[in-house]
Amino acid sequence: MVEDKENSASAGQEPVSKKAAKKQAKLAKKAEHKADTAAALAANEAAGDNAADHAAARYGLSEMIQSKDKRSEREFVTVPELSAHVGKGLVWVRGRVHTTRAKGKQCFLILRQQSSTVQCILAVGDIISKQMVKFAGNIPKESIIDIQAKAVAVPTKIESCTEQSLELSVEQIFVISQAKAQLPLQIEDASRPENADDAEGLNIRVNQDTRLDNRVLDLRTPANQAIFRLEAGVCRLFRDILTEKGFTEIHTPKIISAASEGGANVFTVSYFKDSAYLAQSPQLYKQMAIAADFDKVYTVGAVFRAEDSNTHRHLTEFVGLDLEMAFKYHYHEVLHTIGNTFTAIFKGLRDKYSREIEAVGQQYKVEPFKFLEPPLILQFAEGVAMLREAGIETGDEEDLSTPNEKLLGRLVKAKYDTDFYILDKFPLAIRPFYTMPDPNNPMYSNSYDMFMRGEEILSGAQRIHDPEYLIERAKHHGIDITKIAAYIESFRYGCPPHAGGGIGMERVVMLYLGLDNIRKTSMFPRDPKRLTP
Amino acid sequence: MVEDKENSASAGQEPVSKKAAKKQAKLAKKAEHKADTAAALAANEAAGDNAADHAAARYGLSEMIQSKDKRSEREFVTVPELSAHVGKGLVWVRGRVHTTRAKGKQCFLILRQQSSTVQCILAVGDIISKQMVKFAGNIPKESIIDIQAKAVAVPTKIESCTEQSLELSVEQIFVISQAKAQLPLQIEDASRPENADDAEGLNIRVNQDTRLDNRVLDLRTPANQAIFRLEAGVCRLFRDILTEKGFTEIHTPKIISAASEGGANVFTVSYFKDSAYLAQSPQLYKQMAIAADFDKVYTVGAVFRAEDSNTHRHLTEFVGLDLEMAFKYHYHEVLHTIGNTFTAIFKGLRDKYSREIEAVGQQYKVEPFKFLEPPLILQFAEGVAMLREAGIETGDEEDLSTPNEKLLGRLVKAKYDTDFYILDKFPLAIRPFYTMPDPNNPMYSNSYDMFMRGEEILSGAQRIHDPEYLIERAKHHGIDITKIAAYIESFRYGCPPHAGGGIGMERVVMLYLGLDNIRKTSMFPRDPKRLTP
Repeated sequence: MVEDKENSASAGQEPVSKKAAKKQAKLAKKAEHKADTAAALAANEAAGDNAADHAAARYGLSEMIQSKDKRSEREFVTVPELSAHVGKGLVWVRGRVHTTRAKGKQCFLILRQQSSTVQCILAVGDIISKQMVKFAGNIPKESIIDIQAKAVAVPTKIESCTEQSLELSVEQIFVISQAKAQLPLQIEDASRPENADDAEGLNIRVNQDTRLDNRVLDLRTPANQAIFRLEAGVCRLFRDILTEKGFTEIHTPKIISAASEGGANVFTVSYFKDSAYLAQSPQLYKQMAIAADFDKVYTVGAVFRAEDSNTHRHLTEFVGLDLEMAFKYHYHEVLHTIGNTFTAIFKGLRDKYSREIEAVGQQYKVEPFKFLEPPLILQFAEGVAMLREAGIETGDEEDLSTPNEKLLGRLVKAKYDTDFYILDKFPLAIRPFYTMPDPNNPMYSNSYDMFMRGEEILSGAQRIHDPEYLIERAKHHGIDITKIAAYIESFRYGCPPHAGGGIGMERVVMLYLGLDNIRKTSMFPRDPKRLTP
Repeated sequence: MVEDKENSASAGQEPVSKKAAKKQAKLAKKAEHKADTAAALAANEAAGDNAADHAAARYGLSEMIQSKDKRSEREFVTVPELSAHVGKGLVWVRGRVHTTRAKGKQCFLILRQQSSTVQCILAVGDIISKQMVKFAGNIPKESIIDIQAKAVAVPTKIESCTEQSLELSVEQIFVISQAKAQLPLQIEDASRPENADDAEGLNIRVNQDTRLDNRVLDLRTPANQAIFRLEAGVCRLFRDILTEKGFTEIHTPKIISAASEGGANVFTVSYFKDSAYLAQSPQLYKQMAIAADFDKVYTVGAVFRAEDSNTHRHLTEFVGLDLEMAFKYHYHEVLHTIGNTFTAIFKGLRDKYSREIEAVGQQYKVEPFKFLEPPLILQFAEGVAMLREAGIETGDEEDLSTPNEKLLGRLVKAKYDTDFYILDKFPLAIRPFYTMPDPNNPMYSNSYDMFMRGEEILSGAQRIHDPEYLIERAKHHGIDITKIAAYIESFRYGCPPHAGGGIGMERVVMLYLGLDNIRKTSMFPRDPKRLTP
C-alpha cells in the first residue's frame, strides 16, 4: 500500500475520551486491515514481478478520504487553468480517468474534469517505474484520481482533448475513488454525435432508458453537463428579469385539499387520516398573492400531472415557472411583460451560455433559436386561417392538436422567421373556468399560449377577479363550488384585475436547444413508467 | 350608473363574426342589466335625495375590468412617488380604501397601496357634490379604487399615514373592485403591535387561525408584506451567493419510489397502479449530481414530512434550501463555505432589507440579529460541557432536546454575543446512515448543525462516498439495501468526497426576525391540521 504521506499526517487530531479511544482503536484496526487488503491487491497488480520499485511512494490507492486530517496544503489547479502553468513547477490536479492505455514503457491517460480533458503521460525513467506505468494503465475508467505533474507544451495539437496545446508529465498518481471495471455505458458512446457519419452503423449508441437507468454516468457527457448548466441559466434569467421588473418570489403549497384544476389528472396523497392532492399548478395561490397585495409575483417549483401520457413532451412531475401580475386596464400589459421576459431570456442564453449551446450542438443537431424583438403576436383566429390556407380542416372553437400546433409553428417560421411567437385570444370553450371571457366577442377569451419551435411552452390568461362572475363560470363548467370556496372567497375583499401564465421549464430548455425528448432536460425525469433513479 | 368615459371608449375594438356578435349582444345586455342594478343601488345610496348631482360623472362603480379597451392613456402614480407631484397637476392613483369617513360636507379617506398610505380629502364644492362625499364615505374598506387627485402639501404631519407631508385632494373616484362590507378581520387589528401598551386589554387581537383562515386579508398587513418580501430576499441571497461561488442550481424529483430517509414520516402517493412517496429531502439526488460531476450544487424546493408534530416550528411541507459540494480533503472546506454563505445572507438582509426588518419590528418585538465574522464553530462535546456546567444532565451521545438546544443558544449568546453558531462533530449514533463517521473518534461523525437564536436551521455532514462502506452503515441502521440500490450504485463509478446540508427556509426567516411561529413565515402553511387555504 502506497500511502499519500502528506495527507496522512496526524497533526491536528483532537483529543478523545478513553471510551472513544478504545472504539476508535478497534475501528482503525479494521480500516487498516481493509486498506492492507486493497494495498496488497494493488501492489500485486502493479508489480507484476517482485522487482524493487523505486517509484513505490509515488502511486497507489489512496485511503478513503474521511477528513482524517486538517486541510491539505496542496493547491489544486483546474484543467482550464493549466495553460498558465506550462513550463513552471509541479501542480496537483484531481479528475477522472477518461481513458488510459499503457504500452511498453509509457502510459497515456486522458484526465477529465467535467467537460474539460487533458492528456497525461507517464514514461519509465528516474521518477516513474515500470510498475507505476502498469498501475496507471490499469486504473478503471471513471475513477477519480489525484495527480502531481508538470504542464508541458506540445508541438502538435492534441485533437482528442479540450487542452490541445499542452500535456501533463505525471510524477505522482493516486486513486481517490475507484470505479467498477465494468461500466453499464461508456461515456464515449453516450457522447457520440447523433448526426455523425455512420453509414455502416458501427458506432454504438446508448438508448434513452439505459441512459436514465444509469443517469449518474449519463450526466457526465459534455452535452449533459451543458444542458443542465443552461437549465440553471433559464431559471436564473427568469428570476432576475422578473425581480428587475418588480416581481416578488413566493412559495406555494404542493399538498392541497382539493384538485385545483379538475379532478381528472391529479395525484392523491394520504394525509394523516385524510386524503389530499398534489397541486397541478400554483394557479390559485399566485392569484391569492395578488389579492393579498403582492402586485407581481412569480414562483418556481414542482407541479404534478397524473396523466398517463407517454410522449416526448409529457412528464408527471416538472418544474413550473409561474407568474401572476395585477394590471390597470388591459391584460396585454401582462402579455407584453411575459413576451419581453422571454425575449430577455433568449438574449441572456445567447450571450451568456454560448459555450453550453455549442457543447450541446456537438452532440445534437441544433439549429440556432430565432426570435423577434418585440415578439410576434398573432390572434388565434389568424392561426386558424393560416392552417386552413395550408389545407387543414379545423373548427373556430377547436383546440390546436399537437400536429396542427407543430404545423402552425412551421408556417409561422416560414412567414415570419421566428421560433417564438404568442397566440392570443383562444376560444373560451377550451380554457379553464377562471379565464376571463373576451368582452368584445363571447366566442373568445382573454387568454394566450406561447410557443417555441411550434410547441406550447406557456399557457396564460386574464383571470376572473369578480367572485360572482367566477361562480357563474365555475358552475357553467360543472365545478363543485363548495370545493373552491376558499379560492372564490379570496376575491370578496377587493382584488385588482390580473393575468399571468405558467411555463414548463424543461420544455423551454428542450425547445430552445432543439432537442427531441423532454427526458433530456429533466435531471431525474418522472413519467408513468419511470420513478427511478 | 356613472361610467368611466375615458375607459369605455369603444375605439380599437376588433371586428367580430355575426354569430359571435349575436352572442356578444346577449352578453352585453346581461352585463348592462347587472351594471344598471349596481348603479342604481350606488346612486340611491349616494344621492339620499333626488337633488341634481353636478358631480355625477366623477364617481361611481366602475364596470368590471375585462380588458374591453386598448390600454388606457392614464398614467398612474404610486403612493411613494406622490411627493414629486405636490403642487402640480392631477394624477391617477389606484389603491385600497384603508379607512373612510364622511362627516357633513367632507370625506376623509385613507388610501393604501401595499404598505404605503396617503390621506385623501373630498370636500363639497364646485367639483365635489354632497352625493359624491356620501358615496366616498360608504365605500367598503379594502375595496380597490381609482382616484384622480391633486397632491397638496399639509402644514402639520399626518401621523396616521406613511405619506406624512401631503394629502390628496380628490376630483374623481371610481370603485374598481368592491369588498364585502363585513370583513372577517380588520387590517388594523391584524397590524396592531404585539407589545403595545394594553393593560386593560381593550385592543382586539387576531388569533393565528383566524389569520390563516383569511390569509388573503392577513397578508395585507405591513408586517406580512415585509416578511414575505424578506423571505424572497433570503432565497435570492442564498442563490446569488452560491452561484457566485460556482454552484449550479439543480431540480430534484419530489415523487420518489422509496422513502429516502426511513419510512416513518413519509407521505404516500398513489402513482397510477403503484404507490410512491413524497421526498423528505433532495438528499440522494443532490449527491447523485455530485457523483455526476456537477461539483457544487444547490436546489430550492418543497420537502415533505409526515410528522404529526403540532409545534411552533414544524410544518408538513416546507421549502428546503439544499446544497452539496465536492471537497478535496476535509469536510470543513464545505462547512466553512456554508458558514460564510450564512454570514453573507445576514449581511445582505441587514443592508438591503432594513425597511422590511423595521416594518416587522413595528408589529413584533424584534431584537436585531447578531452574528460573528467568521462564524463561531463549537464542537458538540463543548456544547455538552456548557450545558453540564449550567446544571443540565445530558449524555455524550444524546441528541439535543429542544429545551437544551434553546438553553445552549442562550449560553452561547451570553458567552460569545452571537445569534448564529455552528455545532460540529455530532455523535454518530444520532445521525443518518449515510453520515461519514469521524475517523479520529468512532463515537462522533463528520456532521454538523447550525443554529439561529438557539434553534436548528441546518443539518449537514460529510456523506459516505464509498459504496461498500455505505452498505455496511446502512445495514447497521437496519435499512433494506434493495430499496436504496440505485443510490448505492451511483457511488460505484467514482465519486469525490463531498458534504452538504439542508436549510429550512421558513425557519431562517422566522428566527432571523425573532418571530414565535413558523406559520408566520409560510405564506400558506401546511401542518397536520391545516390543508387550506
